[in-house]
Amino acid sequence: MNTFGTIFRLTTFGESHGEAIGGVIDGMPARIAVDMDFIQAQLDRRRPGQSNLTTSRIVRNENQRSGDYDNMRDVFRPSHADYTYQQKWGIRDHRGGGRSSARETISRVVGGAFAMLYLREMGITVEAWTSQVGPIVLEGDYKDYNLARREENAVRCPDGETARRMADLILEVQKEGDTVGGVISCVIKGLPVGLGEPAFGKLHARLGAAMLSINAVKGFEYGRGFAGAAERGSQQNDLYEPAPGGITVATNRSGGIQGGISNGQDVYFRVAFKPVATLLREQETVDVNGEKTVLKARGRHDACVLPRAVPVVEAMAAMTIMDNVLQNKIWQN
Amino acid sequence: MNTFGTIFRLTTFGESHGEAIGGVIDGMPARIAVDMDFIQAQLDRRRPGQSNLTTSRIVRNENQRSGDYDNMRDVFRPSHADYTYQQKWGIRDHRGGGRSSARETISRVVGGAFAMLYLREMGITVEAWTSQVGPIVLEGDYKDYNLARREENAVRCPDGETARRMADLILEVQKEGDTVGGVISCVIKGLPVGLGEPAFGKLHARLGAAMLSINAVKGFEYGRGFAGAAERGSQQNDLYEPAPGGITVATNRSGGIQGGISNGQDVYFRVAFKPVATLLREQETVDVNGEKTVLKARGRHDACVLPRAVPVVEAMAAMTIMDNVLQNKIWQN
Amino acid sequence: MNTFGTIFRLTTFGESHGEAIGGVIDGMPARIAVDMDFIQAQLDRRRPGQSNLTTSRIVRNENQRSGDYDNMRDVFRPSHADYTYQQKWGIRDHRGGGRSSARETISRVVGGAFAMLYLREMGITVEAWTSQVGPIVLEGDYKDYNLARREENAVRCPDGETARRMADLILEVQKEGDTVGGVISCVIKGLPVGLGEPAFGKLHARLGAAMLSINAVKGFEYGRGFAGAAERGSQQNDLYEPAPGGITVATNRSGGIQGGISNGQDVYFRVAFKPVATLLREQETVDVNGEKTVLKARGRHDACVLPRAVPVVEAMAAMTIMDNVLQNKIWQN
Amino acid sequence: MNTFGTIFRLTTFGESHGEAIGGVIDGMPARIAVDMDFIQAQLDRRRPGQSNLTTSRIVRNENQRSGDYDNMRDVFRPSHADYTYQQKWGIRDHRGGGRSSARETISRVVGGAFAMLYLREMGITVEAWTSQVGPIVLEGDYKDYNLARREENAVRCPDGETARRMADLILEVQKEGDTVGGVISCVIKGLPVGLGEPAFGKLHARLGAAMLSINAVKGFEYGRGFAGAAERGSQQNDLYEPAPGGITVATNRSGGIQGGISNGQDVYFRVAFKPVATLLREQETVDVNGEKTVLKARGRHDACVLPRAVPVVEAMAAMTIMDNVLQNKIWQN
Repeated sequence: MNTFGTIFRLTTFGESHGEAIGGVIDGMPARIAVDMDFIQAQLDRRRPGQSNLTTSRIVRNENQRSGDYDNMRDVFRPSHADYTYQQKWGIRDHRGGGRSSARETISRVVGGAFAMLYLREMGITVEAWTSQVGPIVLEGDYKDYNLARREENAVRCPDGETARRMADLILEVQKEGDTVGGVISCVIKGLPVGLGEPAFGKLHARLGAAMLSINAVKGFEYGRGFAGAAERGSQQNDLYEPAPGGITVATNRSGGIQGGISNGQDVYFRVAFKPVATLLREQETVDVNGEKTVLKARGRHDACVLPRAVPVVEAMAAMTIMDNVLQNKIWQN
Repeated sequence: MNTFGTIFRLTTFGESHGEAIGGVIDGMPARIAVDMDFIQAQLDRRRPGQSNLTTSRIVRNENQRSGDYDNMRDVFRPSHADYTYQQKWGIRDHRGGGRSSARETISRVVGGAFAMLYLREMGITVEAWTSQVGPIVLEGDYKDYNLARREENAVRCPDGETARRMADLILEVQKEGDTVGGVISCVIKGLPVGLGEPAFGKLHARLGAAMLSINAVKGFEYGRGFAGAAERGSQQNDLYEPAPGGITVATNRSGGIQGGISNGQDVYFRVAFKPVATLLREQETVDVNGEKTVLKARGRHDACVLPRAVPVVEAMAAMTIMDNVLQNKIWQN
Repeated sequence: MNTFGTIFRLTTFGESHGEAIGGVIDGMPARIAVDMDFIQAQLDRRRPGQSNLTTSRIVRNENQRSGDYDNMRDVFRPSHADYTYQQKWGIRDHRGGGRSSARETISRVVGGAFAMLYLREMGITVEAWTSQVGPIVLEGDYKDYNLARREENAVRCPDGETARRMADLILEVQKEGDTVGGVISCVIKGLPVGLGEPAFGKLHARLGAAMLSINAVKGFEYGRGFAGAAERGSQQNDLYEPAPGGITVATNRSGGIQGGISNGQDVYFRVAFKPVATLLREQETVDVNGEKTVLKARGRHDACVLPRAVPVVEAMAAMTIMDNVLQNKIWQN
Repeated sequence: MNTFGTIFRLTTFGESHGEAIGGVIDGMPARIAVDMDFIQAQLDRRRPGQSNLTTSRIVRNENQRSGDYDNMRDVFRPSHADYTYQQKWGIRDHRGGGRSSARETISRVVGGAFAMLYLREMGITVEAWTSQVGPIVLEGDYKDYNLARREENAVRCPDGETARRMADLILEVQKEGDTVGGVISCVIKGLPVGLGEPAFGKLHARLGAAMLSINAVKGFEYGRGFAGAAERGSQQNDLYEPAPGGITVATNRSGGIQGGISNGQDVYFRVAFKPVATLLREQETVDVNGEKTVLKARGRHDACVLPRAVPVVEAMAAMTIMDNVLQNKIWQN
């Protein structure tokens, strides 16, 4: 199924080396002005070649033993979808990942931009940033940083000094023909109380599914996440406090969701990305005849996908939230 | 929406203090023998009161300032769904969590048992176990343990010594009127190649959504997960090797899924649980009138949900896999 | 799939001779008082044995050649689902229609009653009646009759004289061991403008699907329907006229829907029912071994299902409208 | 929702006067050769200007009182979706029907052509024809005609003499600035036993929903349909007979479906079309200010949509059947 969402829906089409890729947005409310500059700006944040960390040059994969490009059709790239794709459908485009390619996320960024146009009228914002590259971790809490500053550097980390160290690592890894993983964090502010459902449609279950559908993502956590597994209830409960016109919480360890439903606090979460599988090094593999062979990708390529994945995380979050906002209108008087 | 799945579907109903809870299973293939003993055995693994770690006694929440049980209707329990539920629908059953209650997972265990009856005919097994309680972590890899031994202790940890330390911690925490979180790990063996889709329906995205829909879950990771974010591609790629009748991988750091589609290796993942929110201690909170008050739960209760959540994790995994197995039949010749 | 609807959803379960039948309603808005008397009254209108036209006695089907009830398991009843059911799933309950049985409509009547409780607060009413039994047709337009009077006779026809003739025909047919078909008409009043969608989700497409999912239904038409196919545009167009606070139409030949969306006028439609397939006569058929045999149903049974199908038509219409009402809230400010 | 189908899915986009219209096909099995000539041939059957009965010239609607084209934005065309569209979304493109336009069916014809490419490999064919124009009815049964001959005349009626009379009527109506309705019949041959479901997903319910989603359709019936409502069970039951390798039916009054599931016989049905609403005559109407005005469409236009709707009926039928064929693979061994 190539459709995301239930009411606000994005259907994407096209393969990495096909004639075109695109998408159809369904369920966009009428009379929202379509700000094309904003949409293009989101696409620009995702496009290749923005900096020396991300390059537009197409990677060429070669079967080193034969030196023959056409023989690529017979080789399975390690940790790519080549093999599973071929086994599932009995056919694949050996020139690239087909529907598995990250090029498909172009359509997601456009869909997310439409969602943001709607959400910003409600005062809802979605901000993601690179919080870890390899072993380099941005310390502290998102409240410690001015998130807008993430756009001031190529890594999209809101702390200039950490960004510099991350960039150095990426360049070093790139020189070695290797790649590196990392973590993108995200915070959604301005949410109303009441988004989500108590059973299967928990808000964080839907956000998690959205994030895990992004290429190279291996994990999702929100609130205290995995770190909170080591804690006690007395450390993690958020106590209610009186607030003007209602109630609030003294802390937000829950990550803005209780019982699957947003409580009006910031929703924040983290998304783990594996290092990309395409290496500029020789790797042993097997061809479709079961014979051992050696593969090496040529040209330049992204040694770390995180800087360009930041707008994709934001887009998927925005579409998920918008879908829940529209869905929640059903239950409002 | 109270339905899980697309082809094999479970629709659950009922509230924690309502007249009944239950579910409807749709899409079960015909002519699978219904082994009622097996289904009951799964329910027994989830039921309260199996050991001194899990108790059947109902917790009573009291508003300590008034000493009046009926006033509970006016108090929001910290980190529970009371407040969000009330705000979303304008009504709630103050006696419990309503649809947010973990009692709803009874129906999930039954649905999962039906899925397992089908999957075991295909040679697919689903095994989950407690791999962390608070700071106590089961070291090593799932291949280092005989997973069947997890059923030999109340914690459901396959290592007896670690299980004992986990049990001690749970009892200690319980005495303090506190609770503790942890991690449940799971492995699915015997999967065919080809389950899942390359875009939004990635197999791990659907497993993640399933796990995140379980009460108290705060995170999901598969393969190398968050740890792999610190690694390089050369450390994480799984190289193909020739195998009799096809190809295999030398390692399985990917967690059995590539490009969203199962590759025939074990699918393994980890699920983070927060400490349960109901404490046998006084906690400050606010009533519906915005007045400060103090709440204390009475009686005995689970200080750690993980032992009883193990069969719920297995059930949700089994239903997800079964749904994908049925879905994949569409694309097979 | 055993679920009807997208937001207001009914999932039914159970077979005609199984242990229980029932359903789960999902998407019912909170804080609508559940009027159990009203729900029971709807069930009473559907139940067998209300009059001499509808009987509670179970029909027994017998294989006349063998005289052995158990041999029924090997015989396919003409124009029943026995054969298709057996071929699709390789198994069936020879004692009855399984999921194909009209007993399943009990759950639909309950679901419809819940929908009506909601709709009546909005001033929306759903009224169906028997407008044809065999060749006996109720003349004229629904506006010519006091529809409430349909409940004054066993046939559920709003004209007493026509009802009497219909009843006579049913009793005559019954004596002959035969059955007879007919038409149920329905009108929905009080609808807001704006229900439905312009493409695949046209309001009448959804009403049609709902009606065609009722046992024994062979046709659906709305507005001028098939009769209008013989007419010209100048005869059928509904001209707009000024009205206090807006506009109205001089006529309503469209049946209250334009471009798939309700226009605020009455939505009216007709549903064709075939004669029931169970005859109290000998019928030639074939057993599972492909041998010719003769079948005769015993006991008493409904020679005409229409009187009892009236509340089922109303229920399906009410659920369809409610689903559209809830869906339309998404697009309202 | 702009998506049709559950497994084989078509999502359409674009408005009548927008920049483009199109669609996305999802769920097409791999390795079916895409025969572009066949697809284009289907589009050619739907395109305007094929004959003197169907014209490519765009109709212009004018507000006669003002003589000002721009004022069209303020006038509601009788029996069009203008008013309902405007009320639902608060906006519309006054130049045409937007999403309500029959131009959207271009995408359906393409989707249907893909489905036919798949179905023809299974030996399933879908043939529709014009069986009524105004009061002129094609007598007899589909078995009485060579359906391939429907393509020999502009009306798409398999009987040349009746086609001539229909064409004469259409030209006469056209001269009068009027329009005329009719009926399209369709037969699906070569179906396997087992398509469809016993409850809400009855095969005919899905076919009916598909047909009723086509512009101008007012009714759907299959098998004996409305005519059968006047009959008795003894006249309508299809008796089973032994057949080589299984069983067959002596008659097919059921229309190839029993209990919602195909029985291997021809599935045949009829679809009623109203006369198109755009008249080349003055019609009284009301503008958005509630003032009376007069509207007259200019230019030439289709006085009868049936000839061009034949491929649309076939396309919707093909997509519905294909979706059911794929769905049924789930339940097969």
